[in-house]
Amino acid sequence: MTAHQLLSLNQATIKYATLDEAIAATTAGGIESIGLWREPVAAVGLQESAKRLADSGLRFSSLCRGGFFTPEEGPTRRAAIDDNRLAIEETATLAAAGADGSAAVLVLVVGGLPAGSRDLIGARERVRDAIGELAPDAAAAGVTLAIEPLHPMYASDRAVVSTLGQALDIAEQFPIGSVGAVVDTFHVWWDPDLYTQIERAGAAGTGGPLGRGGGRIASYQVCDWATPLAADVLLSRHYPGDGVIDFDPITRAVFAAGYVGDIEVELFNQTIWDSPYGEVVDRTVAGFAAAVAPHIPAA
Amino acid sequence: MTAHQLLSLNQATIKYATLDEAIAATTAGGIESIGLWREPVAAVGLQESAKRLADSGLRFSSLCRGGFFTPEEGPTRRAAIDDNRLAIEETATLAAAGADGSAAVLVLVVGGLPAGSRDLIGARERVRDAIGELAPDAAAAGVTLAIEPLHPMYASDRAVVSTLGQALDIAEQFPIGSVGAVVDTFHVWWDPDLYTQIERAGAAGTGGPLGRGGGRIASYQVCDWATPLAADVLLSRHYPGDGVIDFDPITRAVFAAGYVGDIEVELFNQTIWDSPYGEVVDRTVAGFAAAVAPHIPAA
Repeated sequence: MTAHQLLSLNQATIKYATLDEAIAATTAGGIESIGLWREPVAAVGLQESAKRLADSGLRFSSLCRGGFFTPEEGPTRRAAIDDNRLAIEETATLAAAGADGSAAVLVLVVGGLPAGSRDLIGARERVRDAIGELAPDAAAAGVTLAIEPLHPMYASDRAVVSTLGQALDIAEQFPIGSVGAVVDTFHVWWDPDLYTQIERAGAAGTGGPLGRGGGRIASYQVCDWATPLAADVLLSRHYPGDGVIDFDPITRAVFAAGYVGDIEVELFNQTIWDSPYGEVVDRTVAGFAAAVAPHIPAA
Repeated sequence: MTAHQLLSLNQATIKYATLDEAIAATTAGGIESIGLWREPVAAVGLQESAKRLADSGLRFSSLCRGGFFTPEEGPTRRAAIDDNRLAIEETATLAAAGADGSAAVLVLVVGGLPAGSRDLIGARERVRDAIGELAPDAAAAGVTLAIEPLHPMYASDRAVVSTLGQALDIAEQFPIGSVGAVVDTFHVWWDPDLYTQIERAGAAGTGGPLGRGGGRIASYQVCDWATPLAADVLLSRHYPGDGVIDFDPITRAVFAAGYVGDIEVELFNQTIWDSPYGEVVDRTVAGFAAAVAPHIPAA
């Protein structure tokens, strides 16, 4: 089976792979693009990673992840901001090393409530403030900070930004090229306001993260939702087609909003992680072809 | 410790109790009101249940539960509608038997996606249509159908209505006394639009379910959110104060919207279910007193 030309494998889908193994598995599967994670990049070193990425001929679709912006002011918060500055530089370097069509997108998981806190509104304000500190650095580096709304079941411990609307409320406070949002089907499929917000993101027009329309949508990620959820709810993500999400209207809406970038498949799932990389890549290609690709308008 | 006068024990908190045991535990704990479930009522018989409730002197705050409105047209859907008509009658009978201040409120869990379906929008339309069929029966019986938005993590398998805004979108299509919504902190605490929607519910004014203001808010339920979630995410509900929910602004908003009814504590939690009823009641009274009661305005 030929992989769709917009499919990108997010490295977390083969979590235990080294950078070299991830690049090899992606290339072997005929996938043209990859989303990387900071830890396996750090294990090889940034410059060496960029070289290997360039040698592979793959596009680079995003770096995961920055964020964790909710601590109160103090050393922990300062360390988080500094670390995000490093992540911005890493993103720029990797995007420059990727093949034509790479996207300098840094995905942000904004963080949950600090220990002992019940102040959701305050935590959300600190997310916005942190992005305000980082937006100029992102702009200077040509990088887009991509705020990822996570499913509300992660609101307390991982991301106090739960909806695309919230992500856009923050993103719109900054220049369109420097801050956008991630649309991840797993996180947003249930949202009654989803289509309105996708349209709103697109209405921001051109000049967006990908430089090719799509407004505030900096990344489109697809994976499926099925119940019962895994005992660790973080690990409940499934191959497209293996759950209840209707990828037709969501995919059409994202492209109608002008999005033309790669589409990542990012799966946190212990069974998938325990499978051979080649099998995972093949199933990703097949799931994408069956459940997502038919809904992508012809370029 | 004296139980707050508005506290109501939802029977599900002591899931394994018979009706008599539930009434006895509630009374022994000094709680003045109880929310009942259909199964333990059916085990005793409706008329006998009503008699025992009347003898107890307790108020009746709601019956759980009707709903499950998402099947396509056919025998399953018809059976669900018919069963809800029975539940409406049960609610009226029990509310009439409860002490002064009882509320004829039937809580609705609207249902998830039918097996094999990915049509979330169609399922939501069928919920609205079913409520349209039942609203005249509810009005005739003096019962309020209370649409309960469930947390989005239950969107596929239990309730395709995930937010208070969605519940109000449906409720507002029907007379204020016959259809309202439940505000359950566990389900809605994360919602960035929560306060706007509570205010919207209140703006519907008097004539609401409780006949005493509160607009479309037919029931206010409090329980807490903590992570990690239980392996079965249905069982993740905690005593008020044992998690991250800030009951202060939510409670104040609900009362500012005019709500003056009882406040139920409904806990699905295996550890709590495995505890002696008296201990559960005492902890419920104490948790409510510490985390919720201080935020209830003086009557």
